Amino acid sequence: MNLHEQLNWRYATKKMNGEIVPQDKVDYITEAARLAPTSSGLQPFRIIEISNAELKQKIQPIAMSQSQIVDASHLLVFAAFDEYSAERVDQVFAQHESERGQPQGFTNDYKAMLMQGFSAQSKEQQFNHAARQSYIGFGMAIAAAAELQVDATPMEGFINSELDEILGLPEKGLKSVSILALGYRDEANDWLLNLKKVRVKKDEFVIQYK
Amino acid sequence: MNLHEQLNWRYATKKMNGEIVPQDKVDYITEAARLAPTSSGLQPFRIIEISNAELKQKIQPIAMSQSQIVDASHLLVFAAFDEYSAERVDQVFAQHESERGQPQGFTNDYKAMLMQGFSAQSKEQQFNHAARQSYIGFGMAIAAAAELQVDATPMEGFINSELDEILGLPEKGLKSVSILALGYRDEANDWLLNLKKVRVKKDEFVIQYK
Repeated sequence: MNLHEQLNWRYATKKMNGEIVPQDKVDYITEAARLAPTSSGLQPFRIIEISNAELKQKIQPIAMSQSQIVDASHLLVFAAFDEYSAERVDQVFAQHESERGQPQGFTNDYKAMLMQGFSAQSKEQQFNHAARQSYIGFGMAIAAAAELQVDATPMEGFINSELDEILGLPEKGLKSVSILALGYRDEANDWLLNLKKVRVKKDEFVIQYK
Repeated sequence: MNLHEQLNWRYATKKMNGEIVPQDKVDYITEAARLAPTSSGLQPFRIIEISNAELKQKIQPIAMSQSQIVDASHLLVFAAFDEYSAERVDQVFAQHESERGQPQGFTNDYKAMLMQGFSAQSKEQQFNHAARQSYIGFGMAIAAAAELQVDATPMEGFINSELDEILGLPEKGLKSVSILALGYRDEANDWLLNLKKVRVKKDEFVIQYK
């Protein structure tokens, strides 16, 4: 299947059957998110991968009690940096220089330009920028799951601050953004499965300047 | 190639060779963005597809004079809704009901719940939510380009308000978010091509709760 066929195969699974997704498939999906491009290569997000049943049960009530939270095999919580600190940005570029065999300090000018931009932004603006980057990886994870024919439900309907507390994200300098529930569709009981996929018409979606 | 191989093949092309990407490939790439999932299926973004040379030249100075802006075959400007108006949301759900053969008003309760949430948000928060959705489509477009071995440079380094004016986006209720430049790498002159792709280590990127 090509990407179009995969995207047509997938849908936001509403009822999962509890079957476990093998760890190598989960790894493939998170790896696609790790490979995703981000602004200046900063990768300002992390994935919290949850297969622990008790933890899923604890999360369900703050996620509109959606059944996928507990019926999913794994929950991938995408969590973005709460800010771009100098320490974090330094760490990224130190790794770039080291792995690319560049002299230490090679990226200093670029880094200074970046940090000048970020320092003009509020912490909230910095988090918003980081959160946007996380959605590129979120998209790649959705595509990767579809490639493997693993079902995936993208979710934003949860109380972010409470999830952050449950997962200890503030101490890590992270804030939850989205959840991707991974599992397998319960074909007999999913009301969305047989409904037509609806998308805005192509000629309305794309505006051409030739 | 699987998605991992495609993501490893791609890179943020810094120098393009001016070669034209066939229209059917551009269509494939924008179609992947159209098929991308979005919150409640709202698809709160559009793509401005630009192959017009004069327009590209006009954009270059407000995009840090980056060469890809004019050397690219096509620019895809991802632009998000400036707000979630009742009219826009109504239009989406009217299409859902119509294409799914549901009675008119079938989605009214869900829609009312959604609009209640949006009305508690500022216009800026609504735009931020819409902009995040656009990044899922942005990710899919990047994956689709890599699948076709079309080079693509994701760009945020431009003056959004000026690009909006050039493209007449305010009248359309849209605000630019990102640009994806499509074209082909200039192998002899791209400084990034042979540098190692650097990513945060997997065990730092994924935090597991088993």
